[in-house]
Amino acid sequence: MKFERKDLPVGTPVVAMVGGGQLARMTQEAAVALGIQLRVLAEGPAVSAAQAVADAPVGDYRDPETVRRFAAEADVVTFDHEHVPTDLLRQLEADGVKVRPGPDALVHAQDKAVMRQRLDVFDAPAPAHQVVASKADVEDFAKRIGGFPIILKTTRGGYDGKGVWVAESADDPTAEEAFRATVPILAEEKVDFVRELSAVVARSPHGQAVAYPVVESVQKDGICVEVTAPAPGLAPDRAAQAQQTALRIAKELGVVGILAVEMFEARDGRLLVNELAMRPHNTGHWSIEGAVTSQFENHLRAVLDLPLGSPAARAPYTVMVNVLGGDVEDMHLGLLHCMARDPGLKVHFYGKSVKPGRKIGHVTAYGDDLEETRERARHAAAYLTGTIDE
Amino acid sequence: MKFERKDLPVGTPVVAMVGGGQLARMTQEAAVALGIQLRVLAEGPAVSAAQAVADAPVGDYRDPETVRRFAAEADVVTFDHEHVPTDLLRQLEADGVKVRPGPDALVHAQDKAVMRQRLDVFDAPAPAHQVVASKADVEDFAKRIGGFPIILKTTRGGYDGKGVWVAESADDPTAEEAFRATVPILAEEKVDFVRELSAVVARSPHGQAVAYPVVESVQKDGICVEVTAPAPGLAPDRAAQAQQTALRIAKELGVVGILAVEMFEARDGRLLVNELAMRPHNTGHWSIEGAVTSQFENHLRAVLDLPLGSPAARAPYTVMVNVLGGDVEDMHLGLLHCMARDPGLKVHFYGKSVKPGRKIGHVTAYGDDLEETRERARHAAAYLTGTIDE
Repeated sequence: MKFERKDLPVGTPVVAMVGGGQLARMTQEAAVALGIQLRVLAEGPAVSAAQAVADAPVGDYRDPETVRRFAAEADVVTFDHEHVPTDLLRQLEADGVKVRPGPDALVHAQDKAVMRQRLDVFDAPAPAHQVVASKADVEDFAKRIGGFPIILKTTRGGYDGKGVWVAESADDPTAEEAFRATVPILAEEKVDFVRELSAVVARSPHGQAVAYPVVESVQKDGICVEVTAPAPGLAPDRAAQAQQTALRIAKELGVVGILAVEMFEARDGRLLVNELAMRPHNTGHWSIEGAVTSQFENHLRAVLDLPLGSPAARAPYTVMVNVLGGDVEDMHLGLLHCMARDPGLKVHFYGKSVKPGRKIGHVTAYGDDLEETRERARHAAAYLTGTIDE
Repeated sequence: MKFERKDLPVGTPVVAMVGGGQLARMTQEAAVALGIQLRVLAEGPAVSAAQAVADAPVGDYRDPETVRRFAAEADVVTFDHEHVPTDLLRQLEADGVKVRPGPDALVHAQDKAVMRQRLDVFDAPAPAHQVVASKADVEDFAKRIGGFPIILKTTRGGYDGKGVWVAESADDPTAEEAFRATVPILAEEKVDFVRELSAVVARSPHGQAVAYPVVESVQKDGICVEVTAPAPGLAPDRAAQAQQTALRIAKELGVVGILAVEMFEARDGRLLVNELAMRPHNTGHWSIEGAVTSQFENHLRAVLDLPLGSPAARAPYTVMVNVLGGDVEDMHLGLLHCMARDPGLKVHFYGKSVKPGRKIGHVTAYGDDLEETRERARHAAAYLTGTIDE
């Protein structure tokens, strides 16, 4: 590591985070405040988090020796993404390294088939699902659940809408595309949903857990674009139900750190688990300004087994809108207008160059009025992206 | 610099901050969020801010060539402390570097005699004062203002109570001690004050300015130990008067960035300017959680000439208490108790080793009830320091 223990104040916790994306970058804000030394295993010398931390060795997270060296002398290893091979993490644990979340938990966020199977054991509410290996399997599954369309997903490696297809029939070309993937395919019921919700919780090795207010998230082309906290109009008992589901999953799977449970609010009233993430999550970014303790701070507190901070909301409404790359290359130019228009706006840039559709930042607004707060956040994101010019 | 322009997204602002203390460290939290690249000129490889930023060359801020190299390619140079020689900064400006605050403003925070003289020109309210060079001068000054005790201060180089003496007579040994200093000495009226206040403002090169709520600060042995925002019981017109004084000073002196104006609330009703600081200030740390825009973010926005953020308070009361080094060497041990006791507590550690009386961190609590909020913050600071054990 860049700093020896003797260079740091006695007792300074060292957290080694695999991956140098924006989640690691935002974790650094919380680490700096708490006097925690964050190391990042970066994909390159100038990736998002490498611009923001003092100690960011470049290395391949798939290489056991690289990860072992990276983990040396850290108090705990945690993650900016879920792509580290499970076996590699098991080996690290066997070496005595604290890995949080551990591989036995993390596999449920890495492999959707494993996740579905495990959640079924304790009857977590889920869409109908089945691993499929052929056109005949797809046909059978569709028949069982009452027909097409259905969803096909790669069990591993998908993110931001990649690795997900809608099949209108067993002969649908998307089904063929899915079967060209090198990993098993999961078929799922295409849920007729009113909206998507997300329940973010944090859990510590001691078993302490806290649940953030349940949020509404809007996805576009499989990418989270807007989050409103709390989910408007969600009845308290429904919100509690979503939180309890997330807390139950965290406990049953032995999650340590942040767990985000993305759910469908189905038109028939069911709250169904869609995806799991075991790391700070896009649906929790609102918590930086919107909650007493941000998801990034609680992730650090959880992996270090420190008591968790309050997840309570600080404002009646907080709205986060992602800033996606558009036609404007210099995103900082837009700050002049956005900051002058709205002195309460909070802008987050990730140190990422603009590419069309790439998440390069987010904006957050909070306030007493839902529509006004949404307008502020949506306006700023659209202006920065370049889709509006006033 | 560690990162070339081409490594960073187009338009990324680069801010070069001289000094690697906790103010630079906390500025980094705001810089990371805004996608601003912060470089720090560090006093050593592992000082407070060097642990927290990617680009922290070590160098002597008094050496012109070092500072010139450090400033190269940055958009603006700013400061974690006020010790950079004025002439060196004038030279930088002559080279075309943007220095904010500029040397002509900064000299008023560096030299108390220059500050007093300048403030007199526009009748800013101040204690009686006079530069003194001898015992006879001290005697004359005391006679003029109605007698001893008086305050003696070094005009340059003092901080945290260092370089300040109370003289009970012209023969007081402290007066002799003062005259052993290598810089001129300023004599001031010893103000009979009810309490100390601080008015923090931010000002941009365009002349835009915002004023934070006026806070009450408590000093112990010349060190700021507690800040309450807003100052309890301060009448709105008095608060406005303090803010106007600070805004006037910022404008008259051409300050860019944060200006903190420490004031005495005198028993006779006067609000008198005590000290100026032209950088994020201990009396503004509450703003990290307590205001819509922290002083660190507004300092960055100001020096980059971005529109300033709202300085409005987010809670009825916010109390910050400094954590000073005590007998406990591992400050992180105390976190278990403090975080478990108060899930709303915000802890800030500076990455500094414990030395008795050294500022090694601060805690912030906010809430609706002043006494309860104060108790929370005071308890946590005392527990972490080791002066209480439950």
